[in-house]
Amino acid sequence: MFISLEGIDGSGKSTQARLLAERLRDRGHEVVLTREPGGSDGAEAIRRLLVEGDPDRWSAETEILLFNAARRDHLERTIRPALERGAWVVTDRFADSTRVYQGATRGELRGLVDRLHELVIGREPDRTIVIDMDPAAALKRGLARGSGEDRFEEFGLGFQEKLRAGFLALARDFPERVRVVDGMADAEIVAARVAEAL
Amino acid sequence: MFISLEGIDGSGKSTQARLLAERLRDRGHEVVLTREPGGSDGAEAIRRLLVEGDPDRWSAETEILLFNAARRDHLERTIRPALERGAWVVTDRFADSTRVYQGATRGELRGLVDRLHELVIGREPDRTIVIDMDPAAALKRGLARGSGEDRFEEFGLGFQEKLRAGFLALARDFPERVRVVDGMADAEIVAARVAEAL
Ligand SMILES: Nc1ncnc2c1ncn2[C@@H]1O[C@H](COP(=O)(O)OP(=O)(O)OP(=O)(O)O)[C@@H](O)[C@H]1O
Ligand SMILES: Nc1ncnc2c1ncn2[C@@H]1O[C@H](COP(=O)(O)OP(=O)(O)OP(=O)(O)O)[C@@H](O)[C@H]1O
Ligand SMILES: [Mg+2]
Ligand SMILES: [Mg+2]
Repeated sequence: MFISLEGIDGSGKSTQARLLAERLRDRGHEVVLTREPGGSDGAEAIRRLLVEGDPDRWSAETEILLFNAARRDHLERTIRPALERGAWVVTDRFADSTRVYQGATRGELRGLVDRLHELVIGREPDRTIVIDMDPAAALKRGLARGSGEDRFEEFGLGFQEKLRAGFLALARDFPERVRVVDGMADAEIVAARVAEAL
Repeated sequence: MFISLEGIDGSGKSTQARLLAERLRDRGHEVVLTREPGGSDGAEAIRRLLVEGDPDRWSAETEILLFNAARRDHLERTIRPALERGAWVVTDRFADSTRVYQGATRGELRGLVDRLHELVIGREPDRTIVIDMDPAAALKRGLARGSGEDRFEEFGLGFQEKLRAGFLALARDFPERVRVVDGMADAEIVAARVAEAL
């Protein structure tokens, strides 16, 4: 099984991906825990191009191409080989993040995102868990860890509200694949909800 | 006007691009002389990902995505602004190189190359000059300069023959845009042929 975790910044994706991988390993499965952008040597090199430098270093269109190049490499070098040998793959973000972030910034890019995905990725996770959360509560968690704050300051709570709406819309667009889990509880409780949703 | 120079390795593209830019400047035009992959800060950074590392660092599909990301940046940051202020643009390679190199290695990728081009580039040069040349003669030039040799050794004369056929096929596919110039003469004579073809 190929599983992705999605949600707004600070919603608990990385925490839940780790807890889910532990739970699956306890059941005796081989688990590959990975993330985007990145997850393979080539994709991590592309990630550095995406995260370094000025915010206007790339246009939105060039950025979408780079995300797809990284995702293609991640799929070929990490995800597909793991699935082929029977391992479970748990990824912290996948194509849904590109759909939602682009849709929230420039809605008219969604067509380009979808056509590129069809052309060069053409694979969805078997199951996607959206961890839903109020952005103000996620911000408080960010403040507690002292690192998520910047991103909220950069984009603002209003932007996180748009992202939240985008992730919830995904669950309506892909009802078979996407499950929404309430992230407002202790991490262990949320982990039980994630396991139940799967 | 937006002009590209194309042809096999060592056919004289860089030499002719330089001579053409000089000729246009002598006539009082502003000329932007540029190249691919590269030609803008972002595209040069992507170029380094493409040329460094093992030959199998990227799959052909990921490579095509990276070429298109670099080309999109080159178009947005260098070519379009130059054309908009009335300058001439002379580029050493453009999208035709991707068409021909991919076609020569894995023919079934040509569809992906064309669809990506439509989706994110959608712009051809106003005129393209293919400098045609016998690969064995181009190899001798490479040996004379002592640097082109590696690439011929890596791919072989047979591969260069395929490329040559690919560039000549372009002239048949795009008869309005592409002109073939015989590159087997002194550089100044070839430059006169290029000017005539334009
Ligand atoms: N259920 C929870 N209750 C309280 N705090 C939590 C919970 N889950 C995660 N946290 C804490 O909230 C912060 C954000 O969690 P995490 O890094 O898992 O989120 P994320 O969605 O991966 O964020 P980002 O988008 O920034 O990568 C971390 O400090 C984490 O320890
Ligand atoms: N008309 C010519 N006659 C003889 N030598 C030439 C001529 N044009 C170029 N050369 C020499 O041949 C070599 C290859 O030329 P050039 O670098 O312009 O080719 P290129 O097509 O840009 O090659 P590459 O694909 O390797 O970039 C250089 O050493 C150059 O000085
Ligand atoms: Mg995280
Ligand atoms: Mg050259």
